[in-house]
Amino acid sequence: MLTVPDKKVPTQDQAIAAMLLKAEVEAFNTAYSAALDEQRLSDWAELFTPDGFYIIISRENHDRGLPVGLIYCENQGMIRDRAFALEKTAMFAPRYLRHMVGNVAVEPEDADGLIVARANYVVFQVLFDRPDATIHQVGRYEDVFQRTPGGLRLKKRVCVYDSLLIDNALCIPV
Amino acid sequence: MLTVPDKKVPTQDQAIAAMLLKAEVEAFNTAYSAALDEQRLSDWAELFTPDGFYIIISRENHDRGLPVGLIYCENQGMIRDRAFALEKTAMFAPRYLRHMVGNVAVEPEDADGLIVARANYVVFQVLFDRPDATIHQVGRYEDVFQRTPGGLRLKKRVCVYDSLLIDNALCIPV
Amino acid sequence: MLTVPDKKVPTQDQAIAAMLLKAEVEAFNTAYSAALDEQRLSDWAELFTPDGFYIIISRENHDRGLPVGLIYCENQGMIRDRAFALEKTAMFAPRYLRHMVGNVAVEPEDADGLIVARANYVVFQVLFDRPDATIHQVGRYEDVFQRTPGGLRLKKRVCVYDSLLIDNALCIPV
Repeated sequence: MLTVPDKKVPTQDQAIAAMLLKAEVEAFNTAYSAALDEQRLSDWAELFTPDGFYIIISRENHDRGLPVGLIYCENQGMIRDRAFALEKTAMFAPRYLRHMVGNVAVEPEDADGLIVARANYVVFQVLFDRPDATIHQVGRYEDVFQRTPGGLRLKKRVCVYDSLLIDNALCIPV
Repeated sequence: MLTVPDKKVPTQDQAIAAMLLKAEVEAFNTAYSAALDEQRLSDWAELFTPDGFYIIISRENHDRGLPVGLIYCENQGMIRDRAFALEKTAMFAPRYLRHMVGNVAVEPEDADGLIVARANYVVFQVLFDRPDATIHQVGRYEDVFQRTPGGLRLKKRVCVYDSLLIDNALCIPV
Repeated sequence: MLTVPDKKVPTQDQAIAAMLLKAEVEAFNTAYSAALDEQRLSDWAELFTPDGFYIIISRENHDRGLPVGLIYCENQGMIRDRAFALEKTAMFAPRYLRHMVGNVAVEPEDADGLIVARANYVVFQVLFDRPDATIHQVGRYEDVFQRTPGGLRLKKRVCVYDSLLIDNALCIPV
């Protein structure tokens, strides 16, 4: 998907269909970002399928095939638990977050309504003890979406961040 | 608009219309960014309607309903005055700015040609007394566009920035 | 292209064609970014035409019409040499890069399959001797694409970066 574009030229209908699907994924990512930036973590958890898989892992570990991640959720129940815990412990609160998602690439939907996609993300933060915005995390999403009657949902989102070391405070969803 | 996507599936025609409208808003935002990044402030002022409302306000004040902002313009005349003053006093000059606008969400155009939209922005800057680029401001645009014979114009842009304290030098449009 | 949008309203067919072309350019930029971020420099070199022109130049020099650049390649041969040298000397390796490309503006394709376009870019980096992500370079692409049987290729990419001084380590493609 992300190598040198290949030679098969799509028809106009195929190109429009691809553009519509990419627009749908981008709208999803915008809603996803807004849920996290506005600290609506319960809304965030509902963006996954019941078997939704969500991890945050360093690029270094990901490249080496090591499964160790900052956050590891095997299904929506674990994602809801994480959201609930963060909302109750207020660990999430003392900062403002702002997502920028770009460089979105989307493969065609398969017969089962699964869509493989990818994007780059930057999360900026403003901590309450310093005035200016800084970079919280930079990385890429490796996604599998599932089409449902309620629209797209994440069946899998692997957040691969570029930073090397992460302090504890960074154990929040991105 | 930015909550969990709802269940009504649009027809292909509706989806194409939504995509065209979003493309129009994105093209507008790109032209808007370029006017500011290239310090063409007179061009920037022309991107508003005569009754165009433009403010820059902190997320903290915005969330509390306080109207105090860094910049407060109630109509295009005030916006032109601001542009003129900045160009003449050259406060704008000793830095390079670079906008990145993303995570754009657009609601359908209403019968009066009004379009509610939203986007995240990051403005990077290079100050002339230090070599590298830094983050000038991160935030979101809350917009109302008006369709005119000359294309889209801003009837309202509220720039809600995430930073807590802003030094004086930041009183420039974003 | 980037001034106040003009008054000619395109037909729906023209608007769809413009959107498809922009989507094609965006897909190209995403593939281009991924090649550099994943250090696939040979793939990167293949994204240019045989007469592809590639330079990285400061905004200051560009505005003054000075041709002095960090990187100056007059054709694909020179681009391939650069890619080969960087891969062999491993100067590229001790950092992670992450591109974000946005604010894309695309002019209509001409009769020769040439497409003038522009975009803003930010490249984030993680150096291996410090844990967090920083800004490597911010700037804009000024592009001419050529349509080929294999898809779009860059006939010309001028990377105009905003920073004033650049340390030696930054002599890597963006």
